[in-house]
Amino acid sequence: MRSGQSENRICFAHTVFLTHKSIPASCFFASPASYFDFLYPNLCGTPMAQTLPFAPDFSKGLLPAIVQDAKTLDVLMLAYMNEEAWQKTLASGEAHYFSRSRNKLWHKGETSGNVQKIVALRIDCDSDSILLLVEQVGGAACHTGRRSCFYREMKDGAIRLCSPQIFDPEAVYKR
Amino acid sequence: MRSGQSENRICFAHTVFLTHKSIPASCFFASPASYFDFLYPNLCGTPMAQTLPFAPDFSKGLLPAIVQDAKTLDVLMLAYMNEEAWQKTLASGEAHYFSRSRNKLWHKGETSGNVQKIVALRIDCDSDSILLLVEQVGGAACHTGRRSCFYREMKDGAIRLCSPQIFDPEAVYKR
Repeated sequence: MRSGQSENRICFAHTVFLTHKSIPASCFFASPASYFDFLYPNLCGTPMAQTLPFAPDFSKGLLPAIVQDAKTLDVLMLAYMNEEAWQKTLASGEAHYFSRSRNKLWHKGETSGNVQKIVALRIDCDSDSILLLVEQVGGAACHTGRRSCFYREMKDGAIRLCSPQIFDPEAVYKR
Repeated sequence: MRSGQSENRICFAHTVFLTHKSIPASCFFASPASYFDFLYPNLCGTPMAQTLPFAPDFSKGLLPAIVQDAKTLDVLMLAYMNEEAWQKTLASGEAHYFSRSRNKLWHKGETSGNVQKIVALRIDCDSDSILLLVEQVGGAACHTGRRSCFYREMKDGAIRLCSPQIFDPEAVYKR
């Protein structure tokens, strides 16, 4: 960790904790106490070598969130999170993002029913990128109906479509 | 594709092609003609259902680039690309990024020797996120010496370290 960051981050995490006391009964965490463990793993005997709290650094703005299928390990999509999206994801166990095009919170699957159930969350070394391992309900993450948004691939000098069509977007996103 | 985007993207791709005529002999592509195939796959009989050229839309600014190990499918890191980084990656077959902290082009592995050899490239549905499938030379992508930058994981209510230490960063990044 770079010097000077530790204290700020702990203060930041502490603020998050203090401003989210009312964690619903259906919370992804068993109790507020386990959320405290989550933020301060080093204080609670969990096997973390670092003192860095497990919290993204939203002081940097919107953070990219990579979504990976927990079973196949296919990368499904990339979206963005703000603090509210992160908290809603933690509280519900389903992926929430911040939609840049609609400029508002986005519960993935709210229209199509194809929600993303959180299996695991990871944060990178700089705490400014998030990785979600998910169970993709319905089998497709892309608004085009393909399993992955990354369905165009260049490999060995050729371009191909590399992700199957799962649903018809015209049928799912009724206008 | 949303209406109105197609023409702009084709114009953009065309500009890219015209301004990068001098592709080196060691290019990732066999020839400028194959780079043309790359940008206009729909014109060349390759199996692409879309008319969208295979080119990221850098008019949106720096684009996030997810790096995935081509064999294990572990997500190793997330970095950012600009047009120059994308072109250098295509031309060399090794990952180049734009370093936001150093504000300059970054050939990953230029200091450590741990370059990333491109196995495949993917672009998402909105052409504003990139996925690189790579062979990670040295086995570690993170400046901390861990295999993945995403080495902190929350799963089943517990925090753990989920990516092994491959090298000692003090020994590799000599100061």
